[in-house]
Amino acid sequence: MIDATDLARRVRDFVVREVLPVEDAHDGDIAAAGGDELRVKLQAAARAEGIFGPHAPPAYGGGLTLRQCADVFEAAGYGLFGPLALGAAAPDEGNLHLLDRVATPGQRETFLAPLARGEVRSAFAMTEPAGAGSDPSTLRTVATRAPGGWRIEGRKTFITGADGAGFLIVMARTSGAPGDRGGATMFLVPAGTPGLKVGRHVPTLDRSMVGGHCDVDFAGVVVGDDAVLGEVDAGFRYAQVRLGPARMTHVMRWLGAAVRAQDAAIAYTARRSTFGGRLSDLGMAQQMIADNEIDLAATRALLHHACVQLDAGREAAQETSIAKTFGAEAIGRVTDRAMQLCGGQGMSADLPIARIAREVRPFRVYDGPSEVHRMAIARRVVSAHRKAAS
Amino acid sequence: MIDATDLARRVRDFVVREVLPVEDAHDGDIAAAGGDELRVKLQAAARAEGIFGPHAPPAYGGGLTLRQCADVFEAAGYGLFGPLALGAAAPDEGNLHLLDRVATPGQRETFLAPLARGEVRSAFAMTEPAGAGSDPSTLRTVATRAPGGWRIEGRKTFITGADGAGFLIVMARTSGAPGDRGGATMFLVPAGTPGLKVGRHVPTLDRSMVGGHCDVDFAGVVVGDDAVLGEVDAGFRYAQVRLGPARMTHVMRWLGAAVRAQDAAIAYTARRSTFGGRLSDLGMAQQMIADNEIDLAATRALLHHACVQLDAGREAAQETSIAKTFGAEAIGRVTDRAMQLCGGQGMSADLPIARIAREVRPFRVYDGPSEVHRMAIARRVVSAHRKAAS
Amino acid sequence: MIDATDLARRVRDFVVREVLPVEDAHDGDIAAAGGDELRVKLQAAARAEGIFGPHAPPAYGGGLTLRQCADVFEAAGYGLFGPLALGAAAPDEGNLHLLDRVATPGQRETFLAPLARGEVRSAFAMTEPAGAGSDPSTLRTVATRAPGGWRIEGRKTFITGADGAGFLIVMARTSGAPGDRGGATMFLVPAGTPGLKVGRHVPTLDRSMVGGHCDVDFAGVVVGDDAVLGEVDAGFRYAQVRLGPARMTHVMRWLGAAVRAQDAAIAYTARRSTFGGRLSDLGMAQQMIADNEIDLAATRALLHHACVQLDAGREAAQETSIAKTFGAEAIGRVTDRAMQLCGGQGMSADLPIARIAREVRPFRVYDGPSEVHRMAIARRVVSAHRKAAS
Amino acid sequence: MIDATDLARRVRDFVVREVLPVEDAHDGDIAAAGGDELRVKLQAAARAEGIFGPHAPPAYGGGLTLRQCADVFEAAGYGLFGPLALGAAAPDEGNLHLLDRVATPGQRETFLAPLARGEVRSAFAMTEPAGAGSDPSTLRTVATRAPGGWRIEGRKTFITGADGAGFLIVMARTSGAPGDRGGATMFLVPAGTPGLKVGRHVPTLDRSMVGGHCDVDFAGVVVGDDAVLGEVDAGFRYAQVRLGPARMTHVMRWLGAAVRAQDAAIAYTARRSTFGGRLSDLGMAQQMIADNEIDLAATRALLHHACVQLDAGREAAQETSIAKTFGAEAIGRVTDRAMQLCGGQGMSADLPIARIAREVRPFRVYDGPSEVHRMAIARRVVSAHRKAAS
Repeated sequence: MIDATDLARRVRDFVVREVLPVEDAHDGDIAAAGGDELRVKLQAAARAEGIFGPHAPPAYGGGLTLRQCADVFEAAGYGLFGPLALGAAAPDEGNLHLLDRVATPGQRETFLAPLARGEVRSAFAMTEPAGAGSDPSTLRTVATRAPGGWRIEGRKTFITGADGAGFLIVMARTSGAPGDRGGATMFLVPAGTPGLKVGRHVPTLDRSMVGGHCDVDFAGVVVGDDAVLGEVDAGFRYAQVRLGPARMTHVMRWLGAAVRAQDAAIAYTARRSTFGGRLSDLGMAQQMIADNEIDLAATRALLHHACVQLDAGREAAQETSIAKTFGAEAIGRVTDRAMQLCGGQGMSADLPIARIAREVRPFRVYDGPSEVHRMAIARRVVSAHRKAAS
Repeated sequence: MIDATDLARRVRDFVVREVLPVEDAHDGDIAAAGGDELRVKLQAAARAEGIFGPHAPPAYGGGLTLRQCADVFEAAGYGLFGPLALGAAAPDEGNLHLLDRVATPGQRETFLAPLARGEVRSAFAMTEPAGAGSDPSTLRTVATRAPGGWRIEGRKTFITGADGAGFLIVMARTSGAPGDRGGATMFLVPAGTPGLKVGRHVPTLDRSMVGGHCDVDFAGVVVGDDAVLGEVDAGFRYAQVRLGPARMTHVMRWLGAAVRAQDAAIAYTARRSTFGGRLSDLGMAQQMIADNEIDLAATRALLHHACVQLDAGREAAQETSIAKTFGAEAIGRVTDRAMQLCGGQGMSADLPIARIAREVRPFRVYDGPSEVHRMAIARRVVSAHRKAAS
Repeated sequence: MIDATDLARRVRDFVVREVLPVEDAHDGDIAAAGGDELRVKLQAAARAEGIFGPHAPPAYGGGLTLRQCADVFEAAGYGLFGPLALGAAAPDEGNLHLLDRVATPGQRETFLAPLARGEVRSAFAMTEPAGAGSDPSTLRTVATRAPGGWRIEGRKTFITGADGAGFLIVMARTSGAPGDRGGATMFLVPAGTPGLKVGRHVPTLDRSMVGGHCDVDFAGVVVGDDAVLGEVDAGFRYAQVRLGPARMTHVMRWLGAAVRAQDAAIAYTARRSTFGGRLSDLGMAQQMIADNEIDLAATRALLHHACVQLDAGREAAQETSIAKTFGAEAIGRVTDRAMQLCGGQGMSADLPIARIAREVRPFRVYDGPSEVHRMAIARRVVSAHRKAAS
Repeated sequence: MIDATDLARRVRDFVVREVLPVEDAHDGDIAAAGGDELRVKLQAAARAEGIFGPHAPPAYGGGLTLRQCADVFEAAGYGLFGPLALGAAAPDEGNLHLLDRVATPGQRETFLAPLARGEVRSAFAMTEPAGAGSDPSTLRTVATRAPGGWRIEGRKTFITGADGAGFLIVMARTSGAPGDRGGATMFLVPAGTPGLKVGRHVPTLDRSMVGGHCDVDFAGVVVGDDAVLGEVDAGFRYAQVRLGPARMTHVMRWLGAAVRAQDAAIAYTARRSTFGGRLSDLGMAQQMIADNEIDLAATRALLHHACVQLDAGREAAQETSIAKTFGAEAIGRVTDRAMQLCGGQGMSADLPIARIAREVRPFRVYDGPSEVHRMAIARRVVSAHRKAAS
């Protein structure tokens, strides 16, 4: 059994020593820092340190509970490239989890094994220009039967890591029409499949994701029956299987980044003199420092609670929605206060805070905007009230 | 071993059946509802139900961990008079805990036993007109040596439950002078001791506390050496012993009250029609309902985490400060949103929400204002950073 | 022409001297302070001071622009009973304005004149148990033709000042059915009309309104054709005529109350010592004091801007919605911070702040909840964008 | 007399037509867009349009009141490079104002005239690594007497526009020592003066300022007596002369940028379909849209009020602090909500919002952090209370 506390400590040390210097030198821009080349190098270092892939299925050398992951991934997230070094960045980490739950033996060998070993990267292609992430009824990419397989037509966008991915898990409509929910199916599509075209990187605020967030076109992409991941028309169900834990691992990683922002702000205010004293002793600074501690602690407490529920085999949809929504907003507040605490320095790349703020801002939108989660949270509790009342 | 989950369920049922009707009939005004007479009646009912005093020391029939208390007290707090019914209201509950930790065998028999059995109430006399709660250096009540004991002179205020209390635990300066911290000692002063005068009830917003929040004068109150609780000059230390858990039990109880406010708001919005649909289906209402769920969940998560730390024997000063500060503010937000969700009804005594809002508002000040806690939280984390850096 | 600045100064002096002592002695409870008896007495004093009714139509001794009213009513609102003393409390002040715009000569003599002279009070009966204020389609009180007039059937609630009012302006449906907007008509119904029954005072948080917020039943109330105020089926239009300025005068009065809360908090913090200095010099206290100044200034700036628009004859629906929504929330924040600044004292009736907080809380709901105003604000701006784009 | 309303309309049209295409093509990065070359080109276009330099002193072709500037600069700020096109960007605009108030005839000819004509740019060198902006006692750059003039030694940072500026206005200590306030003097230092070295551009979040925010070294820079701007040791006073209006013109420009963010968000939500309707019709979207309207209106109202005070010759320190503090935070909230309303698109350079958010964030720090303004606001009001009470 893995000692997660010790592992988290080792991961944190590794991140501080090996990852932060690269991040700081390139202001967190993964492309500038070397992209996949950097990934390979950092993962080799992590492997040498014995900390690579702790979240992988046991058969692939890992075996952490989600609650244990929370400690390890928070430590990894202390550096923007830390999760990448461990092979624990999105979307690979979530895809690994999904494949382990659903893939056939053949798919495990072809896709899961090289992914777990860090030999390839992957992408998860669900979001479309008209939505499809928050509202399944808007899914327009379609897969129709073709001789011995399927033919996929459609366009995806914001596909994280698509540029350079070895394969994509693609969500396509296999029944129903746009406007109703219908059924969707997941397909495993290797890079290089004819008709698959990875387009431009959407020029987003964040810049730390290897492979960017890309437009991807499927122009008559034909795959065999063995490309179907799980059952036909069961794609939305698998998406939920993937999303619960994936939401939590996002929170873990960004929580680590917020901790670094707070650390940097405390270090700055503790050495900065102003108005005849240390900045960290001024009441308004204390308020921001304390509010950061509160937000970090509350995020962590909600996250750990949701992980315990998931580890116990519960769906925990309400718990993960709450932890994701609160966490994404709290992490945003923490980095914003940390910037403010450092004044002009906080606005510059001389400290890591502005860059972290830029990276975490999209998290209030990615993986379900706060507003969609709030709608779901309210519906669930009102519906539960209605049932209890009747 | 007590099954706290089952107990919490029974307590909630009891509160709904026996306590809420009284609370609703008197808009939560304990004096109007019968004061100590009501207390005796409700405690008899709780005893008959087998749910009285679960938090008492094992020797007195209780034996919950603090983490277990969290479930039971939240259930009790669903009614404003619920904790009173269980003998678990402030300040008795905190005094019980303190006496169990510090009292001599004689003091246990004279003070602790009748308190645990609900035969008397008690008060904790620390706050003074000039402060003394948040800032120990402002303590002005003084105890000086007298033949065979001590003579206490001073004035206290906001002493919860003083009117009708069987005894008071009194904090008095026994060394140093006002302006420095010095040393304080706790004394056990029975009601009726000459020179002890319980004055007016401070006319506060909240009205659910039996015995009010009173001015108390000590005009040459003489007590014997056996009135000293614990060691001379160790009062501030004992206050911390009392305050950590007492802070958490406050949060537990008020969390229960906030849950009732949310329940009432959900019930109202689920049956109210407006703009051609149910109020609970409107986006802005969903937002308030969801934010309430988030605030309740985060308060509970922080609270449980702090309880686990305290149960493990840690001081957990940071954890309890964080849970208290976040909890008091979150509970205030929840009740405020619940009021807003119910429109005009939310402003009236026809629903319990306005009354709960009135009761919980002072919790952001009582037991340490949020600002004082934030100052302490910031100091602790900056100081830890400093130590780690050097 | 009236010198509004000088008048405002005189009103403020009068309020401090004549009104605050009564308010403080009865914690702002108008019923406890004497109700209509107190009203008559205070109005006599105001008349003696030459400051009664400055907002009345010029023919009745007044003649302020709305922008001038802003200064005078803010000064009056410094005391909870200040507007009452000037005859400028809701709903009389708004009714005066409405009657001056719409009433026939006969109605002016019978209703407007005595109201302007302070001989009677009035009420405005629009709100119903199912809504009708925020959403006109829910209006259920119906007026049907009767020989020589109309017969009114229905139930109203939250009718401010109904108990003791000399007459009511009643909104009743005269075309369409509940569920659609249809047409409504305003009727002037004198107290004592058979079938008119003023029921209980809704037990609301606020207690400073003479005549309470009442349930009112109309059981076959028959009135003549001369009871119709303005045109038949034009009631919703007149309601808008009344509501724009009435919204602003509410803001003016409550702004004055918030200023008193801030004054009380500043006075308290400037004399209170803690942590070795004055409370007003601590950073977190400065932040609350400054945020209050900002909120007061922003409320005033938005209010004055809307008044200037209304004075220029514009409808200013967006401006008044914005000023009302921001103002109601800002005033709530100001009083809440003022309470917090004063610690335990802030929670008590020893300072006026807790009482002011109680009085202003419903303003976020009364006169259109913030949520309904926000919906309207968004719709107007999106609609304007759409028009500009096409 | 200038018709500011008409001018504002023409400026807005010009910005939409000439400026936004350049901004959008380069994601608001002035260096990428051409730097000074672009400036010259845009200014020529503005001159051709008859809208260049309306804020300049009348002798130089301008003559707007500050209140009129508010309309014109808001229109200019609709594009990030709009103020630059009009010659109205910081720091030139504030320097123009300062020189017009203080410069000698010779200095007017040498420095003011070319600046007003857009022939050169300028910089204002006050901020230092240790502060000096918020807290004058930390000023360390020193000017000592040299034969026929002064010798300046020190280091500045965050000097906006320094790279490429024709001259700098430099604040240097001429009496007292670091740690006390002492006296400071302003010097006019032309580019190319020996010992003056413009260093790196601080890598800040914002990228729209021509000439960047630079480190600047003064290594034995010698200037003549005619380089003294105004009187010796009067620098802090002049800084106030400059800062009041400069604070307001910052708010004007950034307000315009926030208006564009809101426009972009409204356009997006009005055409985006989701959950079976338009995004702009969902309650939570309406709330964000409405809150943006409220924040924009309140910023504008506070700004205009402060401008009217300044135009009337008052110092208006409290009014400008309030308008700056509220405005900077409100503008930040508006852009953040606008981003959130647009989901993934809001995070990308495909819409202008993320870029505007990046540009306005530092405004909560630049020109006095919110916290320093709040301290000053609180001190002023407490001090006024104290005077009134005594």
